[in-house]
Amino acid sequence: MDRISADLQRELASCAHALADAARPETLRHFRAPGLESGNKDAGGFDPVTEGDRQAEAAMRRVLAELRPDDAILGEEYGHAPGTTGLTWVLDPIDGTRAYLAGAPTWGVLIAVADARGPLFGIVDQPYIGERFSGGFGAALCDGPHGQRALKARAPRPLSEAILFTTFPEVGTTADRAGFEAVSRQVRLTRYGMDCYAYALVALGQADLVIEAGLNAYDIQGPMAVIEAAGGIVTDWTGGPAHDGGRVIAAANPEIHAAALAILAGHAG
Amino acid sequence: MDRISADLQRELASCAHALADAARPETLRHFRAPGLESGNKDAGGFDPVTEGDRQAEAAMRRVLAELRPDDAILGEEYGHAPGTTGLTWVLDPIDGTRAYLAGAPTWGVLIAVADARGPLFGIVDQPYIGERFSGGFGAALCDGPHGQRALKARAPRPLSEAILFTTFPEVGTTADRAGFEAVSRQVRLTRYGMDCYAYALVALGQADLVIEAGLNAYDIQGPMAVIEAAGGIVTDWTGGPAHDGGRVIAAANPEIHAAALAILAGHAG
Repeated sequence: MDRISADLQRELASCAHALADAARPETLRHFRAPGLESGNKDAGGFDPVTEGDRQAEAAMRRVLAELRPDDAILGEEYGHAPGTTGLTWVLDPIDGTRAYLAGAPTWGVLIAVADARGPLFGIVDQPYIGERFSGGFGAALCDGPHGQRALKARAPRPLSEAILFTTFPEVGTTADRAGFEAVSRQVRLTRYGMDCYAYALVALGQADLVIEAGLNAYDIQGPMAVIEAAGGIVTDWTGGPAHDGGRVIAAANPEIHAAALAILAGHAG
Repeated sequence: MDRISADLQRELASCAHALADAARPETLRHFRAPGLESGNKDAGGFDPVTEGDRQAEAAMRRVLAELRPDDAILGEEYGHAPGTTGLTWVLDPIDGTRAYLAGAPTWGVLIAVADARGPLFGIVDQPYIGERFSGGFGAALCDGPHGQRALKARAPRPLSEAILFTTFPEVGTTADRAGFEAVSRQVRLTRYGMDCYAYALVALGQADLVIEAGLNAYDIQGPMAVIEAAGGIVTDWTGGPAHDGGRVIAAANPEIHAAALAILAGHAG
């Protein structure tokens, strides 16, 4: 799709918010629910994370069947459903399973609507905090417990003053980790364990970089749309497209993106 | 003080909540404020974190001057003020400076009222989420965006099924880290970067262990009171008192505390 009318833009953005609204109660039903997690120990016991994932994605698919039945869907839990419009809804009902299991409010519901070139509009929603980051079609917003604010990624600063987020040391190969650590040695502060919330912090202008590896399309398209709408950049470790996942770097501005990419280049093979 | 009357218990708990209420707007004024953090780069520019710290602690000291003028105070920013009652208010206006700087809502305001043997009542407050964990005098509660619930630490489970939180690899000596890593190798899941919020997750029954080192009294007394009120245990790495800080282990129950302590014993010298 080369051109998307203003009407269609409004319809798609509205649909994305409807998806996030539908996912919230499904994810919250299982989050921190007493006794649920211990069910994991029983053979045949049900897995609350997968259950939360499935119910949230199913709720979003019901909304799409109503509002945008001809678009394709790519979801973590129920795979790919073809469409006829050239648009695909890319859904990760719970990104940050480890955080969700541990009760930490850094997981999120990731939603994007994409064409073949990548995401056009995306949402990172944190249901427990009640905080939603959205971006695309000329807007970038955070709606949270203290009101609404515009998202704007940070101005350039040297790597030596930068804040880097990652899910390493938890994920990635040894080679992936070497690349991340080479950048980590140059920055002022490296923070761990924030899951998709780290991307929201780049869009908020609070952090400079997120570097990860082993991502799927549904892990990155929602955050990518939000960060790009806030003025940031998301690519793979060679500067190429990142919307299919893999090794991903999200940066607040072109300058710090280039500085980090120069270091990662030695590890991008 | 050997006995604290029910009236005094209510007065102290009420005062602790008044302190947390007073600190909230002071910490939120600087959190994610645009342009503030860049002030750090200027020689003579002001440091927003220290400023947030100072204003929050000053606000709490004003409340104490009004409500409990004869108690002692130990605060991170303004040090020790003597008292005559045998009670000390132990205050950390912003625990988790790195998280605060990076915009991540895992920092907290820590408050405890203690006698010589340790904290009697404590609070871990997360102003951005609007979530308050409190414990002592027979109650343990979480008041958050989705209502109130009782805090109850988890029932015993093997280390191999446990969730461990820490601020390592960011803090601690090489020897400290070796102790933490010896336990980390035995657990199901290790999570990083949660700051004081990790202790709240133990009290919530979401996590089993927090292992840290290099703590001050004001880093641990608030969380300690909350976890103990929820049925958990907080000691140093040898099983001794932890209210003066140092190397600290917080555990959901005596069984997993003993299992982790047995591993840490080889690193507690």
